[in-house]
Amino acid sequence: MNETEFLQSYHREDYDRPSVTVDLVLLTIRDGALQVLLTKRTEHPFQGKFALPGVFVGMEETLDAAAERALAQKTGLRGIYFEQLYTWGAVARDPRMRVISVSYYALVSWANLQEPDGDAGFFPAQEMAQSELAFDHAQIIRYALERIRGKVNYTDIAFSLVGEEFTLPELQRVYEIILGEPLYKANFRKKIAGLVAETDKMTTGGKHRPSRIYRRK
Amino acid sequence: MNETEFLQSYHREDYDRPSVTVDLVLLTIRDGALQVLLTKRTEHPFQGKFALPGVFVGMEETLDAAAERALAQKTGLRGIYFEQLYTWGAVARDPRMRVISVSYYALVSWANLQEPDGDAGFFPAQEMAQSELAFDHAQIIRYALERIRGKVNYTDIAFSLVGEEFTLPELQRVYEIILGEPLYKANFRKKIAGLVAETDKMTTGGKHRPSRIYRRK
Repeated sequence: MNETEFLQSYHREDYDRPSVTVDLVLLTIRDGALQVLLTKRTEHPFQGKFALPGVFVGMEETLDAAAERALAQKTGLRGIYFEQLYTWGAVARDPRMRVISVSYYALVSWANLQEPDGDAGFFPAQEMAQSELAFDHAQIIRYALERIRGKVNYTDIAFSLVGEEFTLPELQRVYEIILGEPLYKANFRKKIAGLVAETDKMTTGGKHRPSRIYRRK
Repeated sequence: MNETEFLQSYHREDYDRPSVTVDLVLLTIRDGALQVLLTKRTEHPFQGKFALPGVFVGMEETLDAAAERALAQKTGLRGIYFEQLYTWGAVARDPRMRVISVSYYALVSWANLQEPDGDAGFFPAQEMAQSELAFDHAQIIRYALERIRGKVNYTDIAFSLVGEEFTLPELQRVYEIILGEPLYKANFRKKIAGLVAETDKMTTGGKHRPSRIYRRK
């Protein structure tokens, strides 16, 4: 169908267009693992299965605004930084009708989140990426984890998962959790040296000896 | 609108959904510069302005298949490797109606292309990214150039812009054109050493002394 044919068909009754949703991969670190926000579906299709939080994009709403709305609905959070991940267009990914999904991801420190209400919850992301979730949502989680692993080495993306103030061992642990492997302390410190600034504070209490507290530069 | 309301409205007459297009940023190197394929619009809106090649996504067509179709329509090419770039959802980006565009980019060696027919042509990409093109297509080109500059350093994306066989000075020139700056030969060769394999051939003829011919590893 070329553009002229498309436009001629635009007002015909049998003309159909896809629906567009935004689905959100919200990741945090809890209990030493990346966890992803999922909600249990209460309706057909995939009733009872877990799904990423998502909304249908409104006609007067940008994609970013739809992502913001999906996030606010499920978590009450606003103003979180998120990024577009990928757009999913397999023809039968939704059994009801043609739905194209624009996926986003966000990384949020657990300190800024709380246990969601009702049928939503945070679940281990690696495990969910291999589970039977609604739609193609396990695939979307796999893609998000891959993207984040790729980006952690050349961006400051990992800092979203610690608080404003952190120790270098805490930050190193976040890198290790994302990458799924231990890092050598000396190499790690050399790598992030340009990204962090010392504060004049030290940790106190606890079993460990005091550590210097840092901030993102 | 929540999911239930959306589905209730789905068969109502006043219910509306966005249209979805795929737009393609096809880049090549010619005359020592990145050039982008554009076509002159013959219809409203932006009649007479240049635009990226694009198609409306069919209801039974994946996004990748639509990108493939847009490419084949304008260039006759098939089987080119392309990647999804970003999805554009500003509410008024098309003055006719709500259109969400999934953009793709492809890098193709000029040796595999030919001068397109009719109202299409290759134009300097940097300049087009700052020009008044149809829709938000200048912005899409800027985004593609930024993505490619980012990726050239940690992927083998640049190899798509040379032929199957190349000399190291040719390959270095491709990197320099993408990055927009000269590179030190020694650093460059160290960086790509793991990506290329020597052939037993040398260049012959020309004004320069013979250079070793390489292939992608």
